[in-house]
Amino acid sequence: MPSEHIVSSFDNDLQELNHLIATMGGLAELQLENSVLSLIRRDGELAEEVRDKDKEIDAMEAQVHMQAVKLLGLRQPMADDLRMVIGAFQTASDIERIGDYARNIAKRTTVLNQMPPIGSANHAISRMSNLVRGMIHDVLDAYQTRDDSMAHDIRLRDVEVDQLHTGLFRELLTYMMEDPRNITACTHLLFIAKNIERIGDHATNIAEHIHMIVHGSDPDSDRPKYDKSSITLIDSDNVRTTDG
Amino acid sequence: MPSEHIVSSFDNDLQELNHLIATMGGLAELQLENSVLSLIRRDGELAEEVRDKDKEIDAMEAQVHMQAVKLLGLRQPMADDLRMVIGAFQTASDIERIGDYARNIAKRTTVLNQMPPIGSANHAISRMSNLVRGMIHDVLDAYQTRDDSMAHDIRLRDVEVDQLHTGLFRELLTYMMEDPRNITACTHLLFIAKNIERIGDHATNIAEHIHMIVHGSDPDSDRPKYDKSSITLIDSDNVRTTDG
Repeated sequence: MPSEHIVSSFDNDLQELNHLIATMGGLAELQLENSVLSLIRRDGELAEEVRDKDKEIDAMEAQVHMQAVKLLGLRQPMADDLRMVIGAFQTASDIERIGDYARNIAKRTTVLNQMPPIGSANHAISRMSNLVRGMIHDVLDAYQTRDDSMAHDIRLRDVEVDQLHTGLFRELLTYMMEDPRNITACTHLLFIAKNIERIGDHATNIAEHIHMIVHGSDPDSDRPKYDKSSITLIDSDNVRTTDG
Repeated sequence: MPSEHIVSSFDNDLQELNHLIATMGGLAELQLENSVLSLIRRDGELAEEVRDKDKEIDAMEAQVHMQAVKLLGLRQPMADDLRMVIGAFQTASDIERIGDYARNIAKRTTVLNQMPPIGSANHAISRMSNLVRGMIHDVLDAYQTRDDSMAHDIRLRDVEVDQLHTGLFRELLTYMMEDPRNITACTHLLFIAKNIERIGDHATNIAEHIHMIVHGSDPDSDRPKYDKSSITLIDSDNVRTTDG
């Protein structure tokens, strides 16, 4: 029964691909955790470790891409199978970007460790990071089980991340205005917060790939955007969000 | 001659895909130009136009992705042909991200128009943007002609963008320290500069897809990174780049 043989080979290949994505995703989640820990604990060695380890994620992305293209050429999958391979390809790219953002957080941590800590900013960053790590963790589970209803929930959770980010953006601007000596540190913290917010966007992208795999179409409506940091205006006695 | 017929159908489909990518890329290049013009000229209407127009790029990405998946399922391309379809798929994603960054620049412009302009920052942003627009323009040409040597040059040009970005990052920190009233405006300018630097990275990604299409492998070595903004430390009388 040659056709059964082909089907089962495809399934094996796909399983291998998904296993690689699970490993890669788990590592990216850990990299985010460690990058933020290195900030909170002022641990330069841990920051260095995160920067080094990013290469492993990059190598895994290359491997997923190579295997996916090989699988497309060799097995020529159709319909659902084809979408699963494309979904794996895209998901690997999103995980690779998550790894890049974690590495960038670790880079900035190395600079921040040389300056006094800033108010309660680390606390807010920690909260954002915990939320986003939860999103990565759950979206990886939803990816493996093709659970679109879980993926849908994850897309909604990104709203909370955006709101935390906007709050932190305002807080950091205020610290900078209070004391110019805070400016360099706060600037790096602004970018760290932005990196975490972007990681949330990539978890959301993976949730959208799951929808595509399951339904063969993009999710219906644009998800609501609650990140108002790009349109926030603060001066000495005035904080507001423009809607222009 | 059925096999010739199949080949020619595939070529037609691919040509259609590449035509869509050319249009999409041209629009993204224009969006970057207009977003920076809206900043320089303090033109709120143009900023609004850029924000609206991004939807068109998103729609084109969805169309490329849909057509690429259809083409994979229908024509089952192998080897070079397969890589060209995958390359188109990835290139569309990079162009879509370029569009997102241009939209974010336009959003921040709307806020910046409500504040006094900052020193010579706009001049440096304009220079960065011109360089990056040149990269987008050339990488789109290289994509259409599969010109890997041109793609190689574009990867090298990104170094100059990174260097300009690091310089501007320092300059903006200095403006903030000089006068706390500059802080909000400079923060948005920092993110605009970062957005342009990221657009350069996406042009570089497309150059890497071209290498992959032509040679079937990733470019040999990691390109050198000259963006030192993540590791820049500035205080009132001290500017340095940490190497930790």
